[in-house]
Amino acid sequence: MNQNKQSADGRFVYRREIRFYETDMVGIVHFSNYFRLMEEAEIAFWRSRGVALFETWDGKTLSFPRVSAQCDFKSSARFGDELEVEVNVLRVGRSSVRFGFEMRNSERIVAIGEIVACCCEVREGHLPKPTAIPPAILKKLGPPEN
Amino acid sequence: MNQNKQSADGRFVYRREIRFYETDMVGIVHFSNYFRLMEEAEIAFWRSRGVALFETWDGKTLSFPRVSAQCDFKSSARFGDELEVEVNVLRVGRSSVRFGFEMRNSERIVAIGEIVACCCEVREGHLPKPTAIPPAILKKLGPPEN
Amino acid sequence: MNQNKQSADGRFVYRREIRFYETDMVGIVHFSNYFRLMEEAEIAFWRSRGVALFETWDGKTLSFPRVSAQCDFKSSARFGDELEVEVNVLRVGRSSVRFGFEMRNSERIVAIGEIVACCCEVREGHLPKPTAIPPAILKKLGPPEN
Amino acid sequence: MNQNKQSADGRFVYRREIRFYETDMVGIVHFSNYFRLMEEAEIAFWRSRGVALFETWDGKTLSFPRVSAQCDFKSSARFGDELEVEVNVLRVGRSSVRFGFEMRNSERIVAIGEIVACCCEVREGHLPKPTAIPPAILKKLGPPEN
Repeated sequence: MNQNKQSADGRFVYRREIRFYETDMVGIVHFSNYFRLMEEAEIAFWRSRGVALFETWDGKTLSFPRVSAQCDFKSSARFGDELEVEVNVLRVGRSSVRFGFEMRNSERIVAIGEIVACCCEVREGHLPKPTAIPPAILKKLGPPEN
Repeated sequence: MNQNKQSADGRFVYRREIRFYETDMVGIVHFSNYFRLMEEAEIAFWRSRGVALFETWDGKTLSFPRVSAQCDFKSSARFGDELEVEVNVLRVGRSSVRFGFEMRNSERIVAIGEIVACCCEVREGHLPKPTAIPPAILKKLGPPEN
Repeated sequence: MNQNKQSADGRFVYRREIRFYETDMVGIVHFSNYFRLMEEAEIAFWRSRGVALFETWDGKTLSFPRVSAQCDFKSSARFGDELEVEVNVLRVGRSSVRFGFEMRNSERIVAIGEIVACCCEVREGHLPKPTAIPPAILKKLGPPEN
Repeated sequence: MNQNKQSADGRFVYRREIRFYETDMVGIVHFSNYFRLMEEAEIAFWRSRGVALFETWDGKTLSFPRVSAQCDFKSSARFGDELEVEVNVLRVGRSSVRFGFEMRNSERIVAIGEIVACCCEVREGHLPKPTAIPPAILKKLGPPEN
């Protein structure tokens, strides 16, 4: 399904159609589903850079749980619309990454969101523990856009 | 929140209101959400009988994953409707339990469903393994209705 | 995204990957999401036959709300699995259509489901009213498999 | 189900238990579901003030679609946890309302969110049109906290 994700002129764009069950009684996509769409796009982005949901580094299991998510709803989308989600790395900190998402329906902007994810060591039965992003992952992420 | 579950004349009834995000563009509850509602009612039923989602028995961890689910949609429900879900044990086999669900909105029947759950030993990294329902759980379940 | 749907040797197959948010705490796809997947496949099937979610016929708006849904869960699927959903028309009645769904992960069967949809006239503020499937739609549906 | 919402010392608190299907493969509540929980709490809050999802004013239908939503995830919640969502009106503008949500599990803060909703005239087939909040609704909302 690589055709869903496409990288023209360096931009990463994730595409998918709105499902019937993602609409609500107002006839439009329920706002909570934009966060699910951002997650899909974020995971597709990581994958395009060769980073899996769980990575092993130095004998530890690392993952990037979200610490915050935000979205401005600019217009609406409906069943059958095919949305484009452009993913950009806005900022890379010691242990955190800020992603920007621009969701478009044809040329019209539907929503603009951000997710901050934090590199954490994850262990069964323990709280995720923030840790520095390993150099190998930093390299795959590349520099933030601006 | 025990007030949500009520047992008049022996029947187990789970109540809850339809959420905005459970509706779809037709203006009614999306059909997939009746299965989620049945799950809530089933879990509330088990709990009312003193059985947890994961039980330890004879040094093993037991749970009741579903092997099938079915629902007939008789009428529709909308945002804000308060549904009653009556749960009945229809049949108890060696390792399986068949639950019946009658979902009503005021007196009107909205949907009638069934879930078959199978007592399984669950172990990290292994497929669930069907096993006989322990006598202690059988006793808590009680005899099937009719 | 036509690449998702493919019709080799006459069979209609809908493909898509399991999303992270479709899993539950057991680590597998939550059972309610198979019903959503069946809906996606059903809508893709109708579309492949040139039938939209709402069709105008004889001055009336027709649609095919579900009257029942059923699923047997044979094995489990996980985040990132790419499922194939084969859609078959099992039976066509005067106003109803019975669809069969076989969901596979690689060659392994994950779930087998059925949905019965009923041709209805839909009008704002009225209950859907069952009506005979128009000849034009019958022709597009084609004969049931056997 | 008024027992779910409670207003001790003027604060509005919405309570409900985490459902099984709201968890993900990490074993915790999926982040998108906090936005659904905030919506439930917001709707319960409006209702407690006597404002419905759709209000008629001056011959127009008014509603409060969201223009943005934001959430910081402070810790996690699991199946069966009973969350408290405290709702506060942070700011009231000419046509917009900013709500704050503090989600707690026992005393521990799980998430802190905000939703900005905008008073709009809604008409079938038209885009929602921002409009001043009518005095009657302003009065029911009351002054923002601080």
